[in-house]
Amino acid sequence: MEPRHVYLDHSAGMPMDPRVLEAMLPFFMTHFGNPSSLHSHGSEPRAAVAKARGAVAALVNASPDDVIFTGSATEASNLAILGTASKAGGEGHIITSAIEHFSILNPIAHLAKAGLKVTILPVDKQAVVDPAAIRAALTEDTILVSIGYANGEVGTIQDMRTIGEMTSKAGVPLHVDAVAAAAHAPIDMRSEHIDMLTLSANDLYGPKGVGALVLAPKMKAQLDPLLFGGGHERGLRSGSENVPGIVGMGKAAALAKAEMPKNSAFLRSLRDRLIKGVTSEIKDSYLNGHPERRLPNNANLRFSFVEGEGLLLNLDMEGISVSTSSACTSKTLEASHVLKAMGVSHEEAHGALLFVLSKENNEVDIDHVITRLPPIVDRLRAMSPLTPKGYLEEELDTDKL
Amino acid sequence: MEPRHVYLDHSAGMPMDPRVLEAMLPFFMTHFGNPSSLHSHGSEPRAAVAKARGAVAALVNASPDDVIFTGSATEASNLAILGTASKAGGEGHIITSAIEHFSILNPIAHLAKAGLKVTILPVDKQAVVDPAAIRAALTEDTILVSIGYANGEVGTIQDMRTIGEMTSKAGVPLHVDAVAAAAHAPIDMRSEHIDMLTLSANDLYGPKGVGALVLAPKMKAQLDPLLFGGGHERGLRSGSENVPGIVGMGKAAALAKAEMPKNSAFLRSLRDRLIKGVTSEIKDSYLNGHPERRLPNNANLRFSFVEGEGLLLNLDMEGISVSTSSACTSKTLEASHVLKAMGVSHEEAHGALLFVLSKENNEVDIDHVITRLPPIVDRLRAMSPLTPKGYLEEELDTDKL
Repeated sequence: MEPRHVYLDHSAGMPMDPRVLEAMLPFFMTHFGNPSSLHSHGSEPRAAVAKARGAVAALVNASPDDVIFTGSATEASNLAILGTASKAGGEGHIITSAIEHFSILNPIAHLAKAGLKVTILPVDKQAVVDPAAIRAALTEDTILVSIGYANGEVGTIQDMRTIGEMTSKAGVPLHVDAVAAAAHAPIDMRSEHIDMLTLSANDLYGPKGVGALVLAPKMKAQLDPLLFGGGHERGLRSGSENVPGIVGMGKAAALAKAEMPKNSAFLRSLRDRLIKGVTSEIKDSYLNGHPERRLPNNANLRFSFVEGEGLLLNLDMEGISVSTSSACTSKTLEASHVLKAMGVSHEEAHGALLFVLSKENNEVDIDHVITRLPPIVDRLRAMSPLTPKGYLEEELDTDKL
Repeated sequence: MEPRHVYLDHSAGMPMDPRVLEAMLPFFMTHFGNPSSLHSHGSEPRAAVAKARGAVAALVNASPDDVIFTGSATEASNLAILGTASKAGGEGHIITSAIEHFSILNPIAHLAKAGLKVTILPVDKQAVVDPAAIRAALTEDTILVSIGYANGEVGTIQDMRTIGEMTSKAGVPLHVDAVAAAAHAPIDMRSEHIDMLTLSANDLYGPKGVGALVLAPKMKAQLDPLLFGGGHERGLRSGSENVPGIVGMGKAAALAKAEMPKNSAFLRSLRDRLIKGVTSEIKDSYLNGHPERRLPNNANLRFSFVEGEGLLLNLDMEGISVSTSSACTSKTLEASHVLKAMGVSHEEAHGALLFVLSKENNEVDIDHVITRLPPIVDRLRAMSPLTPKGYLEEELDTDKL
């Protein structure tokens, strides 16, 4: 029998929904024209891009004209941050939090090096950003607040409505990285007062290499482009449209909106089964992030006395794929900046495993993890110099026998 | 019978080669992992991206490590230009030519607004950039020369080897936009002394939404990134890798290299049949660009007394797709900046049609144009206020009866 492969690393990469591929296929070899073309070969791509724009807008309660397609979510966030700073002449003050993705923190660090003032807010032990702390940090110079809707690493969902009402009253643009949240949370840019929103197609079961920055109408005059050329995307993102990719993102957004209640309920049940199963089977294992206000597909668990990398590699040998921190930097083996910001000790942070589920997973996958993980943790703990003397014997006495 | 559709607007959009799609397909839903992942789901995408890097490098005689994948050719050229200027502290001098693509001219214009010195060189009537003019424009402050390998609009191929030897001797980095040329000219970055080269996947019969900047090894320390985040592509282009797109670009590059002699000979014969047929059938029709040193797939033709837009729309009704100028701005109906730079009058520039062929075309396509275009030109000339009195009668006398 083929060994079971269980993929639970969906923040690193997602499979496309087959319906997305089906929607994209005609645009590779049949409707391959340019949406800007005056002849009839331009009309099919033009209509398809317009439809995709509408579907992406509808997912977050924006207008089709508000959607700027980009080559990645990283580009979208860089456009929001660097574009705002450039329009402000490179001067001013930006507020963000210590748990943001590197596609937020690193452009801000680049601006800080060039002299822009930056406030990086702390978070509490559950990775919650305190809206009052944002208010307290606002100055007359503040040109932007950038806070993620939900943290892709520890799953915590922020109180965006309170944050949005506050930045809106203060008249400061609010940028929100919604990459991890958009498939799971019913985002409403209007009622949540979000001025700029970053989306990734792949995180909606869409294609890689496509993202979007959705802009409240007033923001279009408050941003400089990052890429200059033919003036596409209302002059904010030049480069011939990636028609198949945009069509795929539109289809993925439409599916995400239609199927969100069903998918979220399903994922929540799997997630809770995983958290309950693992933490009840393994002594000194803990959930990172907020226990209730969390993404339905995220379980970030840490295990005292062991290293996440060891767990990852042992799980891989059992056919289970997980990660230890954000995949884009997992090669560095540095402890997660998110866990550090939450006050998790360096040692405990190294024992964290990130399980990110998708609608392709099922209960058998979860039960496979619950069965295979405990002996791996036991084995690694037996070899770990961090394990207190007598700890394993005690476990044998009380838990297993 | 189904009416014949003849697509001759391949600078606006290209169909993918079916072998490219075949290579991409496994990476949408099967090998969807992240190349950076430590577990085994990362290994297939990692190997595939490495292979693609090798194929793209081989196309232009570079090393795999030299290839920086981007979300478009526009992004690649912006990275070369804005990245070089940023590293130089926003100061210095850039040399380019008046016929470059807007993805070159517009980032340079943006830098000029911010105070950087810029020289925009003229071209001759055949769109040739004089290497001696570049040499004369070099100053101690010059940080970059950016010249396209071949012009996508009028087809002229520059004398890159002479230009490269000269900039190399002067110690000034040379950026080359090779989007229009790469499928047709055997580019050798080493012997032609090219330091940075922009490529587009779609122009190689690959996917849209993928490009590359190929960098001579010394350039990596002379560029700032445009996008900050997880530090992908050696820190020069953050954003999770678009694995299917990169795989597609690699396959397209490998096919382009293997099939270039065959494709170029085929395209050259079609192009020459088109040029000869049209200019012999239609009085006062002229080829724009260099008659010999030109892309094998490009025929830019102008017709006195008529407007290109009228020709385009009439050809479209006959099932023939062409464009009047670079597609990304064709909606604006402005005369081509390339033709203007070549000294073509405003009126004559408005009468230009761009035919860009692909390996999917054949002689029947070409003969269809040669048959259908003359009566359209006659009809439009009969209605045009620009047509001299007696011109059409004269034609009837001498040419047709």
